[in-house]
Amino acid sequence: MATVRKVIIIGGVAAGPKTAARLRRLDPTAEITIIERGRFISYAGCSLPYYVAGLVKEQKDLSATPQGIPRDPAFFQRLLGVKVLTQTEALRLDPAAKRVEVRDAEGTRWLDYDMLVLATGARPVVPSIPGAGLPNVFTVHRIEDAEGIRACLGLGRAQPADSHAPAPEQPGAPRRAVIIGGGLIGVEMAEALVSLRCQVTLVEALPQLLPFLDPEMARLVQRHIEAKGVQVLTGITASAIEGQGRAEAVTIGSQAFPADVVIIAVGVRPNSDLAAAAGLELGPSGAIKVDSSMRTSDTYILATGDCTEDWHLVAGQPTFLSNGANANKKARVAANTIAGREDAFPGILGTAIVRAFDLAVARTGLTEKQARKLGHDTETCIVPAPDKVHHYPGAKLVTLKLIADRRTRKLLGAQGLGPGDVARRVDVLATALAAGMTVDQLAYLDLCYAPPFSAAMDNVIVAANVLRNKLDGLLHGISPVEVKAKLATGEDFVLLDVRTPAEHAATRIPAARHIPLAELKDRLAELPRDKEIVAFCAISLRGYSAERVLRAHGFTNVRVMDGGLAAWPYERAATQP
Amino acid sequence: MATVRKVIIIGGVAAGPKTAARLRRLDPTAEITIIERGRFISYAGCSLPYYVAGLVKEQKDLSATPQGIPRDPAFFQRLLGVKVLTQTEALRLDPAAKRVEVRDAEGTRWLDYDMLVLATGARPVVPSIPGAGLPNVFTVHRIEDAEGIRACLGLGRAQPADSHAPAPEQPGAPRRAVIIGGGLIGVEMAEALVSLRCQVTLVEALPQLLPFLDPEMARLVQRHIEAKGVQVLTGITASAIEGQGRAEAVTIGSQAFPADVVIIAVGVRPNSDLAAAAGLELGPSGAIKVDSSMRTSDTYILATGDCTEDWHLVAGQPTFLSNGANANKKARVAANTIAGREDAFPGILGTAIVRAFDLAVARTGLTEKQARKLGHDTETCIVPAPDKVHHYPGAKLVTLKLIADRRTRKLLGAQGLGPGDVARRVDVLATALAAGMTVDQLAYLDLCYAPPFSAAMDNVIVAANVLRNKLDGLLHGISPVEVKAKLATGEDFVLLDVRTPAEHAATRIPAARHIPLAELKDRLAELPRDKEIVAFCAISLRGYSAERVLRAHGFTNVRVMDGGLAAWPYERAATQP
Repeated sequence: MATVRKVIIIGGVAAGPKTAARLRRLDPTAEITIIERGRFISYAGCSLPYYVAGLVKEQKDLSATPQGIPRDPAFFQRLLGVKVLTQTEALRLDPAAKRVEVRDAEGTRWLDYDMLVLATGARPVVPSIPGAGLPNVFTVHRIEDAEGIRACLGLGRAQPADSHAPAPEQPGAPRRAVIIGGGLIGVEMAEALVSLRCQVTLVEALPQLLPFLDPEMARLVQRHIEAKGVQVLTGITASAIEGQGRAEAVTIGSQAFPADVVIIAVGVRPNSDLAAAAGLELGPSGAIKVDSSMRTSDTYILATGDCTEDWHLVAGQPTFLSNGANANKKARVAANTIAGREDAFPGILGTAIVRAFDLAVARTGLTEKQARKLGHDTETCIVPAPDKVHHYPGAKLVTLKLIADRRTRKLLGAQGLGPGDVARRVDVLATALAAGMTVDQLAYLDLCYAPPFSAAMDNVIVAANVLRNKLDGLLHGISPVEVKAKLATGEDFVLLDVRTPAEHAATRIPAARHIPLAELKDRLAELPRDKEIVAFCAISLRGYSAERVLRAHGFTNVRVMDGGLAAWPYERAATQP
Repeated sequence: MATVRKVIIIGGVAAGPKTAARLRRLDPTAEITIIERGRFISYAGCSLPYYVAGLVKEQKDLSATPQGIPRDPAFFQRLLGVKVLTQTEALRLDPAAKRVEVRDAEGTRWLDYDMLVLATGARPVVPSIPGAGLPNVFTVHRIEDAEGIRACLGLGRAQPADSHAPAPEQPGAPRRAVIIGGGLIGVEMAEALVSLRCQVTLVEALPQLLPFLDPEMARLVQRHIEAKGVQVLTGITASAIEGQGRAEAVTIGSQAFPADVVIIAVGVRPNSDLAAAAGLELGPSGAIKVDSSMRTSDTYILATGDCTEDWHLVAGQPTFLSNGANANKKARVAANTIAGREDAFPGILGTAIVRAFDLAVARTGLTEKQARKLGHDTETCIVPAPDKVHHYPGAKLVTLKLIADRRTRKLLGAQGLGPGDVARRVDVLATALAAGMTVDQLAYLDLCYAPPFSAAMDNVIVAANVLRNKLDGLLHGISPVEVKAKLATGEDFVLLDVRTPAEHAATRIPAARHIPLAELKDRLAELPRDKEIVAFCAISLRGYSAERVLRAHGFTNVRVMDGGLAAWPYERAATQP
């Protein structure tokens, strides 16, 4: 490649500035210009819900370096010799002439480039329902959105609140918020708004919250969010936002839910219009198609960050996912490509994490549903276990779901949730997934162990062993969702609780029969041999022992409820009558 | 394999009971007997320092299930149908006759087996110095040791203390403790004893604490431990324990250090005497040699847990390491082998973690020193970074060291320390190591990202990229230990601090010259072109930018100090004169 003199980067939020910074370190002399439509550059868009909540206290924190230096155009000019044009919009590309037309306060003009980088990101989808354009209806995308939401709630820019401390006194009645969309941002905003003492209604059109999870995991999150006071509505659509000049209520089904502020968080779309208009190839998702070096179909145009399509390493197909971490990685590759250094972004796993009040909730790879759709014969497990030695102070529960292919025994995906260190376990699983590990390899990973950090058998190891037991035909599982369906249809089977009498007295599933594991061998006569028996305990380790005991005594139709009571997302009875 | 009827397991602490429990689930009818020399079985030996500290409050917690049921012989009999003989010592094996001689209160007798499992564990090394047998001198191995230590300090069994809360008032002057050995248990005991208001002296014969780390990482831990009030002596040996009928002082070098209690924690050895006496093959480490199915050189004898030798997956050679997590995994394999189910324990990575007061300190794979000794041409990096988005409340530092092979670019090992979530990053690195990943693959892992959980570029990704920059010749590093040595020998070079004036005023390395990065291009004339320049900043990201600027302007002898000021384990000056 000839030396590149003029590089223009369109987009100044995440991938753009990262590309510029890396490129400058590789090439001291190239003329690098960033064009950004908005007022702000290089800010942490992912932190906006925490800025709304007041956990991130000042607007400048969103774009400052760890030393508190604002990453503004002057910073880029002074430290990197990169020119930044804010409030400057790229109107169209002219790939043949290698130029881009821009508009700023002074009018329009053409800028020439030797190499162009599209880092145009993604934009929130706004459903076409009446009232979506009212002034107190917001997406959560720009710093201005976060400030608008705070203003609606009578909060200024710098009135920090802490989710763990009482919010500052607010005049009048509590504010009411309706959030349309139960994905990652919807859930983050629910927490933020509850911490600001709002009454929150969250509506999701799909039958479950957080569609990046399988339904039984999402249901556990929903229970937690509801316990925190959020009204959750699923499988129903917000059809209109009512109000004259200002949103006053959201119509959901046949009911109107009053709202002082409305948040729309139904997903994002790639900003690929500029690329499409210039004739660049888009992928099936509508995002810009790039190779692993971030090259588009035009020799002199790269695209990087959220506007590009990703290759899903487990699905083996293209996909579009907005992800700030991958945007940064792809930006580094783009800079390397411009500088003539060979590099390749291999693809993604769809790893994602969200904090939902006291829970961390994460996913990597395929869900069970996705895996089946792709033709995999799947086996799964749901395994709750403490994240430290259980007698160590502060041990907290982590519930993992693993999905594997029965034939290859390879991991296909994993989900985790709980108050414990979920990120650690899902990161290990994401790494194993990237390496194409089988669940057998997973079970023998040599992970950090000491009582303050994990149980002797870490959650990942325990979950892998449960799944191996299933793949080897030792353990036959059934998901809590299926058990619930059996109960609902009045199916004749035995739901067998093998916990201790003390545990059973404290809380129980009303329909379950109770025989403690220690008494099971002596009370086999109480159990029918012609009906299915579904055993469970607190987490289903003793449930598994019960299956082994029953099968050893000739019972053939025995299963264990995945995850036991800890993963049961439905009603329980408090004490025995 | 013919059906196994009688299985005898020697050893009842960790691997033995685990083997029994797994085997029972696989084989409902085998006659399984555990023989244990001590009074207690199935207890959490790794938690003893926390039991001493009072964080684990009661003795029974050490061996109870999460439901509070004690894992005693009655429990094993009732729930698993496993017979446990405590206070029963295995005296010798007779492999030809498939029997083992045992001694209990009633005398000696022979027990027959079809299959024998040696799960005899490891025992603490006691150096042969005068006074090592005095009653207030302890290793940290058995429950009795922990209780003895507490009794010496005037604490009963159930007087919980909390390291985060004041210890209960104790009569008289503070107790003095000397700990001989600065490995994992020595460091854990230092923390436990400080939490109990002891004056603690920790002595390590090697030149550094925690020999599982490289020296510059160990030095950072030492600084932290010293700041917590522990007197640390390295490179010097405890030569005698003085006292009549009771230890009163420990002689270290020419000085006597008074002691109310002495802890010996200089390492462990495998309990392989029984195996050796019976003619079973031992490995070069002295531990019992087993194949990946846990078979010894005798067809009817398996060995598992800490008494066996491990295969180190990165070193490619046998090694002995005591590790409760791997003991459990190996026990599962032993049970599978007895039950005729094929399974293989692949080997270990030497992963270890320890809490040292406010720091988590971990390692996986080879240290730089080990890697060089094995003939690798190594490249390394030391990279401190916050474990969450830096503006998110509660973000804490994690400092990672990666070691890679220059030729293959494969990861060889990693170390991590800091108040942040170190275990998560080292677990990811351990998983990558097990998969044989290169640092390039590491840099593109798709890990969990959201502001409450990590920065957009997770610590692992940042560290991998720093190492790639070094491997690619963009960044030339020098370790803080080497910089310190240059300063000590009065070498003529420029140590260049490129932080902001405010950072420099707050704390600095006395010998460093200060030119903020933003001014560097305009002040190049101040720097000599004929001397080496070593740049650094807070963590050395701006140090790297400084190298790139200097090289772009014709400076050829430029390096960056690994990890910047955050990884500088030596003295600093507080403010400028």
